[in-house]
Amino acid sequence: MTIFNSMQIAFPRTLRSLMAVATSTFCLGLYVTAPVQAQSTASAHKQVEQLVDAGAANWKQVSKEIWGYAELGYHESKSSALLQTQMKAAGFKVEAGVADEPTAFIASYGEGKPVIAILGEFDALPGLSQQTTPDREPVVANAPGHGCGHNLLGSGAALAAVSVKEYMQANHIAGTLRYYGTPAEEGGSGKVYMVRDGLFKDVDVVLHWHPGDRNGVINGGLLAVDSAKFTFHGIAAHAAMAPDRGRSALDAVMLMGTGIEFMREHIPSNSRVHYIISKGGVAPNIVPDLAQMDLMARNPSNTVLTGIWDRILKIAQGAALMTGTTLEVTGIGSDANIVGNDALAPVAQKNLEEVGGYTMDASQKEFALRLQKTLGIDTVPSLDQTDTIEPLRPVDPNAPSASTDVGDVSWVVPTIGFTTATFVPGVAAHTWQATASAGMSIGQDGMIIASKALALTAADLFTKPELVTAAKADFARKMTGKTYHSPIPVDQKPLINYRGN
Amino acid sequence: MTIFNSMQIAFPRTLRSLMAVATSTFCLGLYVTAPVQAQSTASAHKQVEQLVDAGAANWKQVSKEIWGYAELGYHESKSSALLQTQMKAAGFKVEAGVADEPTAFIASYGEGKPVIAILGEFDALPGLSQQTTPDREPVVANAPGHGCGHNLLGSGAALAAVSVKEYMQANHIAGTLRYYGTPAEEGGSGKVYMVRDGLFKDVDVVLHWHPGDRNGVINGGLLAVDSAKFTFHGIAAHAAMAPDRGRSALDAVMLMGTGIEFMREHIPSNSRVHYIISKGGVAPNIVPDLAQMDLMARNPSNTVLTGIWDRILKIAQGAALMTGTTLEVTGIGSDANIVGNDALAPVAQKNLEEVGGYTMDASQKEFALRLQKTLGIDTVPSLDQTDTIEPLRPVDPNAPSASTDVGDVSWVVPTIGFTTATFVPGVAAHTWQATASAGMSIGQDGMIIASKALALTAADLFTKPELVTAAKADFARKMTGKTYHSPIPVDQKPLINYRGN
Amino acid sequence: MTIFNSMQIAFPRTLRSLMAVATSTFCLGLYVTAPVQAQSTASAHKQVEQLVDAGAANWKQVSKEIWGYAELGYHESKSSALLQTQMKAAGFKVEAGVADEPTAFIASYGEGKPVIAILGEFDALPGLSQQTTPDREPVVANAPGHGCGHNLLGSGAALAAVSVKEYMQANHIAGTLRYYGTPAEEGGSGKVYMVRDGLFKDVDVVLHWHPGDRNGVINGGLLAVDSAKFTFHGIAAHAAMAPDRGRSALDAVMLMGTGIEFMREHIPSNSRVHYIISKGGVAPNIVPDLAQMDLMARNPSNTVLTGIWDRILKIAQGAALMTGTTLEVTGIGSDANIVGNDALAPVAQKNLEEVGGYTMDASQKEFALRLQKTLGIDTVPSLDQTDTIEPLRPVDPNAPSASTDVGDVSWVVPTIGFTTATFVPGVAAHTWQATASAGMSIGQDGMIIASKALALTAADLFTKPELVTAAKADFARKMTGKTYHSPIPVDQKPLINYRGN
Amino acid sequence: MTIFNSMQIAFPRTLRSLMAVATSTFCLGLYVTAPVQAQSTASAHKQVEQLVDAGAANWKQVSKEIWGYAELGYHESKSSALLQTQMKAAGFKVEAGVADEPTAFIASYGEGKPVIAILGEFDALPGLSQQTTPDREPVVANAPGHGCGHNLLGSGAALAAVSVKEYMQANHIAGTLRYYGTPAEEGGSGKVYMVRDGLFKDVDVVLHWHPGDRNGVINGGLLAVDSAKFTFHGIAAHAAMAPDRGRSALDAVMLMGTGIEFMREHIPSNSRVHYIISKGGVAPNIVPDLAQMDLMARNPSNTVLTGIWDRILKIAQGAALMTGTTLEVTGIGSDANIVGNDALAPVAQKNLEEVGGYTMDASQKEFALRLQKTLGIDTVPSLDQTDTIEPLRPVDPNAPSASTDVGDVSWVVPTIGFTTATFVPGVAAHTWQATASAGMSIGQDGMIIASKALALTAADLFTKPELVTAAKADFARKMTGKTYHSPIPVDQKPLINYRGN
Repeated sequence: MTIFNSMQIAFPRTLRSLMAVATSTFCLGLYVTAPVQAQSTASAHKQVEQLVDAGAANWKQVSKEIWGYAELGYHESKSSALLQTQMKAAGFKVEAGVADEPTAFIASYGEGKPVIAILGEFDALPGLSQQTTPDREPVVANAPGHGCGHNLLGSGAALAAVSVKEYMQANHIAGTLRYYGTPAEEGGSGKVYMVRDGLFKDVDVVLHWHPGDRNGVINGGLLAVDSAKFTFHGIAAHAAMAPDRGRSALDAVMLMGTGIEFMREHIPSNSRVHYIISKGGVAPNIVPDLAQMDLMARNPSNTVLTGIWDRILKIAQGAALMTGTTLEVTGIGSDANIVGNDALAPVAQKNLEEVGGYTMDASQKEFALRLQKTLGIDTVPSLDQTDTIEPLRPVDPNAPSASTDVGDVSWVVPTIGFTTATFVPGVAAHTWQATASAGMSIGQDGMIIASKALALTAADLFTKPELVTAAKADFARKMTGKTYHSPIPVDQKPLINYRGN
Repeated sequence: MTIFNSMQIAFPRTLRSLMAVATSTFCLGLYVTAPVQAQSTASAHKQVEQLVDAGAANWKQVSKEIWGYAELGYHESKSSALLQTQMKAAGFKVEAGVADEPTAFIASYGEGKPVIAILGEFDALPGLSQQTTPDREPVVANAPGHGCGHNLLGSGAALAAVSVKEYMQANHIAGTLRYYGTPAEEGGSGKVYMVRDGLFKDVDVVLHWHPGDRNGVINGGLLAVDSAKFTFHGIAAHAAMAPDRGRSALDAVMLMGTGIEFMREHIPSNSRVHYIISKGGVAPNIVPDLAQMDLMARNPSNTVLTGIWDRILKIAQGAALMTGTTLEVTGIGSDANIVGNDALAPVAQKNLEEVGGYTMDASQKEFALRLQKTLGIDTVPSLDQTDTIEPLRPVDPNAPSASTDVGDVSWVVPTIGFTTATFVPGVAAHTWQATASAGMSIGQDGMIIASKALALTAADLFTKPELVTAAKADFARKMTGKTYHSPIPVDQKPLINYRGN
Repeated sequence: MTIFNSMQIAFPRTLRSLMAVATSTFCLGLYVTAPVQAQSTASAHKQVEQLVDAGAANWKQVSKEIWGYAELGYHESKSSALLQTQMKAAGFKVEAGVADEPTAFIASYGEGKPVIAILGEFDALPGLSQQTTPDREPVVANAPGHGCGHNLLGSGAALAAVSVKEYMQANHIAGTLRYYGTPAEEGGSGKVYMVRDGLFKDVDVVLHWHPGDRNGVINGGLLAVDSAKFTFHGIAAHAAMAPDRGRSALDAVMLMGTGIEFMREHIPSNSRVHYIISKGGVAPNIVPDLAQMDLMARNPSNTVLTGIWDRILKIAQGAALMTGTTLEVTGIGSDANIVGNDALAPVAQKNLEEVGGYTMDASQKEFALRLQKTLGIDTVPSLDQTDTIEPLRPVDPNAPSASTDVGDVSWVVPTIGFTTATFVPGVAAHTWQATASAGMSIGQDGMIIASKALALTAADLFTKPELVTAAKADFARKMTGKTYHSPIPVDQKPLINYRGN
Repeated sequence: MTIFNSMQIAFPRTLRSLMAVATSTFCLGLYVTAPVQAQSTASAHKQVEQLVDAGAANWKQVSKEIWGYAELGYHESKSSALLQTQMKAAGFKVEAGVADEPTAFIASYGEGKPVIAILGEFDALPGLSQQTTPDREPVVANAPGHGCGHNLLGSGAALAAVSVKEYMQANHIAGTLRYYGTPAEEGGSGKVYMVRDGLFKDVDVVLHWHPGDRNGVINGGLLAVDSAKFTFHGIAAHAAMAPDRGRSALDAVMLMGTGIEFMREHIPSNSRVHYIISKGGVAPNIVPDLAQMDLMARNPSNTVLTGIWDRILKIAQGAALMTGTTLEVTGIGSDANIVGNDALAPVAQKNLEEVGGYTMDASQKEFALRLQKTLGIDTVPSLDQTDTIEPLRPVDPNAPSASTDVGDVSWVVPTIGFTTATFVPGVAAHTWQATASAGMSIGQDGMIIASKALALTAADLFTKPELVTAAKADFARKMTGKTYHSPIPVDQKPLINYRGN
């Protein structure tokens, strides 16, 4: 997830926008009218939480090893292998290399309906290498680091899966449990290809989580995002001797950028379009015959984004027309916005509140206070934030937000998620402070909260078929009149070297 | 002619570039090997010059009346009527309103071959009203004025035609003499429609002249020019409430302009592209649904200009594509560059040298010296400049220059021209100082030089058929591999209100 | 008020954002704990409503006459004179031509404290002339029209004032009642100069209203706006002969515009910046030595807007620096955002609910349904909308909105306002449909709702001193740490000809 | 010399513009009135040519070794070392590492006046590695290659110096002869630092040459060039979460570029400004806090260029102002235009004509014809071009051209130069075809022509003091009212890693 919880200080609505509201009396009624079931739920939940606690030490260690590997998207070979080994050891069958992604895999247990899936990620971010110290000290300068906490994400989700499997086995509960090892979330749209290949076709409900600096339910929100590289091809010429013979690809990139700037006023304010010039010419005395813009566009709504994307393509075509150059669009990536589920949200919220937060010990607090001093933010949140659970709130479509390829999954399967306080309060994702947090006990303690909430919710779904039914009904309602379509071309394979090209 | 002689101080090559060089040994030989004819030429020339002197007073007065009318392009009704009346009185047949231009006319005398045509113009320029005083004093503030001296142009050319007619009549010389009353040279491309309507189809040689601040032959040069209004249509919207619903036509104009700027590096350096934003929105709180650019492009070569014009159209289309607006191109104007004639040039040069310049009298000099003080130029040329004749020189394709619709005529008929010192030396066309000069004796004295040079050359053409033959041969050679094509659409009528729209 | 209620269909939060929420238990408590006073209030309210009904016919007629005058900002001489005459006839003292504005006036009645003011506007909008027909039929093509309903605004507010005066007189109630005739709301910032001249210094509470297409309280919101003309001065030159000698003022305007476009991404999303090019050069063959941008910038917060305005000035300076031109900033206008008042809002809401809406009769409904067909909007609201009162809601800082110079008044005096359904539901302000509505019975019936709500609230303020005290306390709280400062230069007189220059 | 002879096919005036014209009757008279001296000159010249022939084989081999090294500017350690070794072996004293340039050196012989200097270069160009084959076959893909023939330049100049030394020694001729080993001509401005350090202070005349595809004298011309890296520093921010907190350095670069484009119309047409975006942001989801433009500006006149450079700096400052970023200008490079010498030019011309060209043998012709097929040019020049000598012509200030740091030397010492046909006719410098030519016999044969012309001219200067006097007089005349000033900051050391930064 691209910078999931950053900026929450400055924009207090940010995180709140990711929380869901319970409005359906049907769902609330569910609990009120089923006291007997609720009682057995309490006992089941206790068992599940104990199973998570039993596995905690091992999976904290796994998270730490993946933190050390810090592998970039689609190149997470060691991280993926470690997770696969662990899942096999825990009794899961593993299918690796799915969806043309070398590091993707599906670990599964059980059979029949329902099919409940838990998502795991494990890719790192470039340049965020950092030791587990409260001051800026890279392990290796400019090397990748787990600044989005995906080492915790993949491990915590696996711990949930393993615990639920133990619980199912112990209680002879039917159904299929899957753990999806999903690579390259950070810009590689790894899950989109898995969706495209039909790997979620028979799944009934998807559960996910993401590291953050507070505890809450993720029920919809985030931004749909499309991205691509726009490469222009012109004609080189000596810029002093014969500039009139050249057709500048850089001119095209600059005019495309200018066209984008002029478009900003005329798209909805809650859209985002941002770009870099990834190739801007080789030498000033040569008219550039090749130049490239690397661009992303976002909007809370996939549908609105599609309209904006079409206009961006026209701007690119216009720039080519203006400059006598030709346009090539490659490396198309896309994440949909997350579709919330108002049947699952109150269940998830109840489970998270049941688990509760955690309280830092003295040494964690000392670390946290020192780290907060490096943040340079106006209002530093209290450390107590790790103890509390955010209430459900409706998504604010104008709140600043980021993007994730979980979005695409949520367009094809009912989906609900959590965020937990794995980062020192005030720390934004995609920072070295997040890398530091994700490699030490604060991150690991927060991870266990997520594992438990996921495991409890999965257990509920396996034991209460009406929950799955309600989730599907809400999903069907939300999808009425909508279709899921990814702009990633059907013949485009996963861009294994997307970071290097 | 658009700013014919301006800037000659700063760019000493400017004027020289308009002068022709005699390189053809054929032409030079013509005079050497025909002494008898040369002798009779001397006598003929004497007669022609006397006829011009006899008509001078009347036509100076005509020039002064047209100076007073100061009518804008296509609206020169009084000026045209006066010239027609005068030509009829002198024995010419007049056909008026040709080529769908109310103020265009052709006055003709005689019949059969050869057909020799002299061009006359009579339109004024907006905002250049000025009394015949050496200080800035408009007759009417912001009113039009003859800042390009076309009052002299039309009158001096008519005097030449009338004198040649007298000479032909007196000497029973066969052939057809025509005077073309051509409106709207200043941006209206009046002659282009006359060319399009075939009015020059049977003409053998065209003669023309233009006021300036020195005496010389115009043998080719000047810039081909294309112009148009680019109007974009968008969608209005309240700019504060719903800017995302608007599609800004002003954005399109600005992106088109920016596209033009990026093109500059990649067209030949001696091109010119310039524009204004003639409509830029109505109110800042409304997304403009209409905006307009008024643009001109120039190059010494019609062919090169055609390529540039195509690219400008693509830039405009690109701007529309980028902004979701639609494009309308209207008011297309076009003047070709002047094609020189190396057979006629030495004849014209010899005749102009035969006529010689003129010397200002004391009061003219006093006026001239006072006027020069208002010019604000570094090097003020000597007043003796009116006495001398510039030598023939090849055209410099990089010299700053302007445009005229005489160019289009020169692409279909062999053409040669003169410039004479009608403006105080140092005065550029399109200034109030030029208006002042063109309304008083300095302009009128310079005009007589032109009348004589034109008349002598016409007389030569009527009496020496080999000259016409040589002119046609040179024309054929220059046109090899070229075709004349005006970008003005065939269904576009003359833009009678081009200044007001 | 610039397009107050437009777009409410597409953006259902728009209008709601203008409504206030009652959160103060103090205020709510006020009514609960004062039953006796409430009883007498009922009788007083009845009397006030009857007084409004008694004056209704006359003031509907006044509104119709001003609708017919349709005078532009600062030139509302007939409209202002009619209102002054009426107020004098009703027993008010009138001071005219205040604040250097020929059409501004203050009508006052009574003396001593409290001082309660009601605001009236009466300027029309260019180009919106329209008959009272449901199809587009201008009275005079392109002439001004009351597309913002200020003919109703000024008349309805006056009717309220006259009724309250009758009530005060009848009941010997002390205090000062004022009606402010405020010109040029539409872009002229008329009230800002009145604030600057101290005309609101002794006022305790200000009441206002604005035509719309539904009924509700205006408690804060709208956008602060700054505007100015940015004129660049360059050096003219012939664009073909010597473009290198020119310094293009149009280049500066275009670069300033481009700079603005690049800034958009880096200001808060709920800001607005929009501009036209009001002067874009005179002729394409002259490098423009003068060009002008007319620009407005808006943000929900005056403070944020000040920061944006500073950056816009730097962009303009940068454009001058880039092009070798000089910059002149003139015609500065500014409206602040509206500061809400949470003590007054529940009182206003209660009164509006007491008045209630109105139900269209058959002919009104027929007219309304036909007019709605011309709107071209997706979801056409029900005509029942005129019957209902919107609940109080907090302002949404991201909702599309417009601006008004009432804002500046609200920064110096506690202020509360109403909007009522004077336009056919679905009709946006600043449209010909609004002009049509404002000239016929629908507009007039809606106006009476506003008159009553204003009069009831004024009566409350005169009879319940604790209300004034609470209003001032809330105002003081909101202003803590803030200062009001208008960017309009202190030596700038009202721009009487702002529309023509 | 940056692309010295390219494009000569398309622009026939290009090369001609580099040739000088003999207009001074003084110089012509010199030869006419000094027959005795001319006679002894003939004998001296014969001796000098024989000395060159004697050294030819060795120096062809040196040129081939340097061709193999193909070292980039300031890193020509092997090439410089080889040349130093050779010069020492030939009896020169060598001072190495001058002007803070590790690979610069001065080899000198003799003492006293006059001091005559010959310039040598030896740096290669990136990406132009090519075998000596007529088809594209790099030695090492993307590696540097001698595409400007500086391997020949340095060796041929050294051969001239060594031959003149032998001649001086043999004839007991007094004076000081120097060979300047000048690194990094290609963009490193190596000679500018040598000029700055006063290394040419006591030199009387400088001689130079440059490989090309025809034979002629270089008497002035080429373009003055200034270059720099414009780095903008902004504020990074997450582009989706908080773009309003960012200040984009890329925006600044794009606005600077756009400002440059708008300036083009308003600088003299024969100027050149070209740039690339060398740093355009790191990731599209981060507002770039660093971006960089690498820019060059050129004009035939150093003085005009200074004015343009000042405007470019203002554009950069304007872009910073517009975007809230800061500007850093580094890596400033500069070459002046070449000042011709009309006293030396006819001497050089006479000597070159005396040497004459060379005729390709059959195998050279076969190679040349095959290579010409790869050129893709419209008109392929005849191979006879190597046999002929171009006449002296005045420099055309509008002809396309390139730049060299020889220019700066020519602003402080009288300078004259040659170009000879070392590249297959039609081959432009800075191409793989030039690398191929420079590595085989065609390049080597052309080099010997240059060595002889240089040696003859140096011999003349040592034996005819009046020539040095005349050269100095012409230099003094040309410099009247001018001063040499390089924009390279006095505290900027040579940019040893200019290619890598």
